[in-house]
Amino acid sequence: MINVAIVGFGNVGKGVLRAVDKTPDMVASVILTRRPDAVASKIRQMGLVIPVKPFDDMGKIPVDVAILCGGSKEDLWTQGPTFAERYPTVDSFDTHGLIPKYLEMMDKSAKKGGNIAIISTGWDPGLFSMMKLWGHAFLNLRVYTFYGLGKRGGLSMGHSNAIRDNVSGVLDARSYTHAIPDAIERVRAGENPELKPGDMHWRECFVVTEKGADLGTITGMIKSMPDYFFGYRTTVKFINQEEMGQDHKAMFHDGVAIAVGETSLGNKSVMEFQCQWDSNPESTAKIMVACARAATRMKKQGVKGAFTILDIPPGYLSSFSREESIRHFM
Amino acid sequence: MINVAIVGFGNVGKGVLRAVDKTPDMVASVILTRRPDAVASKIRQMGLVIPVKPFDDMGKIPVDVAILCGGSKEDLWTQGPTFAERYPTVDSFDTHGLIPKYLEMMDKSAKKGGNIAIISTGWDPGLFSMMKLWGHAFLNLRVYTFYGLGKRGGLSMGHSNAIRDNVSGVLDARSYTHAIPDAIERVRAGENPELKPGDMHWRECFVVTEKGADLGTITGMIKSMPDYFFGYRTTVKFINQEEMGQDHKAMFHDGVAIAVGETSLGNKSVMEFQCQWDSNPESTAKIMVACARAATRMKKQGVKGAFTILDIPPGYLSSFSREESIRHFM
Repeated sequence: MINVAIVGFGNVGKGVLRAVDKTPDMVASVILTRRPDAVASKIRQMGLVIPVKPFDDMGKIPVDVAILCGGSKEDLWTQGPTFAERYPTVDSFDTHGLIPKYLEMMDKSAKKGGNIAIISTGWDPGLFSMMKLWGHAFLNLRVYTFYGLGKRGGLSMGHSNAIRDNVSGVLDARSYTHAIPDAIERVRAGENPELKPGDMHWRECFVVTEKGADLGTITGMIKSMPDYFFGYRTTVKFINQEEMGQDHKAMFHDGVAIAVGETSLGNKSVMEFQCQWDSNPESTAKIMVACARAATRMKKQGVKGAFTILDIPPGYLSSFSREESIRHFM
Repeated sequence: MINVAIVGFGNVGKGVLRAVDKTPDMVASVILTRRPDAVASKIRQMGLVIPVKPFDDMGKIPVDVAILCGGSKEDLWTQGPTFAERYPTVDSFDTHGLIPKYLEMMDKSAKKGGNIAIISTGWDPGLFSMMKLWGHAFLNLRVYTFYGLGKRGGLSMGHSNAIRDNVSGVLDARSYTHAIPDAIERVRAGENPELKPGDMHWRECFVVTEKGADLGTITGMIKSMPDYFFGYRTTVKFINQEEMGQDHKAMFHDGVAIAVGETSLGNKSVMEFQCQWDSNPESTAKIMVACARAATRMKKQGVKGAFTILDIPPGYLSSFSREESIRHFM
């Protein structure tokens, strides 16, 4: 039985608790949080019995792996290295451009503690990273990724938070990413086109403002925000807090990774991997839990340092033994 | 530079030669074949300069990896262990039910020679095996696989050969697999239905017979062939050799692996991986070549024995260094 510490109890942490609960070879031993009283009462409401402790108790509790459920922007930069020194860890660090830097830091901490850290797990980075590697390794091709394929698009928490945190007068916000169907069709047709980010996606924002806020200014600030909205077609719609609560609770997301090329002149080859999640944090949690199993297996083999899904023998993710995996999956 | 021996020069062998030719870190050093004269003249016709040698020269030629391009039914049972004793090997052994037995045999030979053998590479088994593992590890779900999604279906060489080899009076045959769209829709809807093989696919056969053959008897023999056609809706159409040559040269195949479940009550999750290959042997070859790279890397690390794609750290497949892979794919 694998004893798991759940670190942080936001949406992903709740998803991890749910996923561990359904995983026969794992048990949630402790939840570590900044707000132990609030989380403990939530846990009681859920009818569960799991110790809830403050972060400071880290190290006192013997667990096999710590699943770090904090965000990439702040939490993981400090929690990651601290935990990696004491436990095998898994996280979902998802700021793509900063992964090499985060990996280096986690590698140092994990090695110092004689542990293993598996970073940046989830579906993107994670499963989509595997697809990018496959597209390049098998077809010598770049892989295009699109998000928000359906009518409702996909909820981007990063973009939602960027509005809430950076635009004054905003009380709450949601930003949905939408793929541009024409761009997908060009990729599927095998054009391998040069596409700017704004050619592939547009963004739809719903915003609750303070009373008397200047809506024109807020719209302008959102549309011109670099890295997040500038360069994308962006719509901004103002709603009240009640509408926000009613219509924008769901955390769905989806995406597709596509590679299209030729194995020889005129012989087309296509690989396409699609994910649709009604709950993005719950699906991320499911993937993290499987990676936690891999971490404990690699730790047992004496592997030390920080790794990504590209380093993990895939069989380690499964609850099956190697023999069972070969029989069932090959 | 990785020096490759191509063992066997049928459709897959030709595909491997083409793929190695386009792979900057590899060079085709030798082709080993049962028919060196015929293959050498073919190679000259292609305008290429590669030594062509008989199988018996195996062991005399120093290469880094041997890519075994023979079939699962006969070639690999003898070639596999013989080569695995002398070189790191990669093959596409694809008789799913016999993989554990073949793996055991290859493991023994590879260990005896201090080598590594990567078996059963390609897209199924291979990429689809990874999807089955992912579906089970991440969503606790079975993964459904369908083949022949488009109007033309997918060419099954195994079924084509089964007709040609086992039904007297048959000169040539092609069998196409077709997915049954209703079954796919039920899976996509999240029903996780119990489906018998014949509920998922039907088979379309084109057959050239000897003059005066009894078409009714042949049709009956095909439709009642166990493992291959019995239990499937099967159509048999008789054509002449000219039509066969004109209309049935292409070796296209495709398929989809689908997993649909819930991460929590009412929260649906879907993973879907689709491949479409105009040339099945060429795409299999592309995947084998990337696995050959992985074999040489694992050999360098001192790994010995036989493995499947489920054992290989995915990064080993890429021509990129670990740092480049992290930067480009994560």
